[in-house]
Amino acid sequence: MSLIDLRNLQQAAAAFGEARGWGKYHSPKNLAMALSVEVAELVEIFQWQTEDESREVMAGAEREHVEQELADITIYLAQLVTALGVDLDAAVRAKMERNARKYPAPAPGGE
Amino acid sequence: MSLIDLRNLQQAAAAFGEARGWGKYHSPKNLAMALSVEVAELVEIFQWQTEDESREVMAGAEREHVEQELADITIYLAQLVTALGVDLDAAVRAKMERNARKYPAPAPGGE
Amino acid sequence: MSLIDLRNLQQAAAAFGEARGWGKYHSPKNLAMALSVEVAELVEIFQWQTEDESREVMAGAEREHVEQELADITIYLAQLVTALGVDLDAAVRAKMERNARKYPAPAPGGE
Amino acid sequence: MSLIDLRNLQQAAAAFGEARGWGKYHSPKNLAMALSVEVAELVEIFQWQTEDESREVMAGAEREHVEQELADITIYLAQLVTALGVDLDAAVRAKMERNARKYPAPAPGGE
Repeated sequence: MSLIDLRNLQQAAAAFGEARGWGKYHSPKNLAMALSVEVAELVEIFQWQTEDESREVMAGAEREHVEQELADITIYLAQLVTALGVDLDAAVRAKMERNARKYPAPAPGGE
Repeated sequence: MSLIDLRNLQQAAAAFGEARGWGKYHSPKNLAMALSVEVAELVEIFQWQTEDESREVMAGAEREHVEQELADITIYLAQLVTALGVDLDAAVRAKMERNARKYPAPAPGGE
Repeated sequence: MSLIDLRNLQQAAAAFGEARGWGKYHSPKNLAMALSVEVAELVEIFQWQTEDESREVMAGAEREHVEQELADITIYLAQLVTALGVDLDAAVRAKMERNARKYPAPAPGGE
Repeated sequence: MSLIDLRNLQQAAAAFGEARGWGKYHSPKNLAMALSVEVAELVEIFQWQTEDESREVMAGAEREHVEQELADITIYLAQLVTALGVDLDAAVRAKMERNARKYPAPAPGGE
């Protein structure tokens, strides 16, 4: 069972970029910059909101805007995974196991 | 056919956070901040590299570091998708279709 | 009267970098990345804090950490201003005037 | 001799925000987010440029755009310094001294 499977998106995004001759711009350095810019566009939606307002954002006028920024983030993430040749599912699984060792869960019933 | 399926990761990350009582920190506002911080940790790896050096990063000493940062980004993205209740596959599909209309591919053989 | 004067810092930071042979890394592209990374290190301090906790941060254990991150941000900003050859005081003055036109102040006593 | 003096900008930006009732939004947490968003708008200008292209950016059509983003970054930095009550000149001086100890300059003539 995989935790994440984005291989179809990787293929679709690669085909999209190749058809437009964008491959030469897609170094890991540039894609990491582009990913940071897209995340900032998401952060901008929340910057003056309270935490509670941010929890209600999908019930308001920014719903579609949020979805588009999340999609842009995901598409650049997929392109970065392709450019780097990473097995993202394996990397995520390894990190989850590492986190479990780093932050042991408290015993049930304890505090 | 889905472009991306991260529902198992969403469940695993949610269970991980709940077992540690972290849910109250995970407002969309805070998770967007945390996602931006993780992306910056990836950007930091590339900041003094040339583009060509960034293309070779996985053949060097930073390989595991890159994988860990990509994993952290992906885990926060999954938590954000959960906190917002977004269907990420549908959002990505809509954005890919929007991009195809916005940036039409040049005709084959043309320039 | 200037709004901001960081020319002494520009000179000190340039001399510091030149003595270490760092000039070749300091393209505007790379310095903008480095600036974004330093800002993220500041954001990280606040990411799980409430807004009220962030207002009290200088009374706590993170005081020196906050000062160091603000200093790093300022030093990279100065290096970027040098690399781009910008008159920062003039640029800030122009932007403040632009903001005053874009966001007119409400009349005193009004709402 | 100060390395940086932005006290006039701090006063001007504070007066600007107070006249518009924006003070309640200006927690350190929110201002740090806003600063990161402005830096991303600068990064966006450079993301697909080569380093050499970024060195020539002020000779091209993006000149005023770059100046405006640098100004926005500086204005938010000033507001953050005010919100935190930091003596920025002292913080920068301390960090420069720390950096000099951390990265000793090579002896002249040596390598």
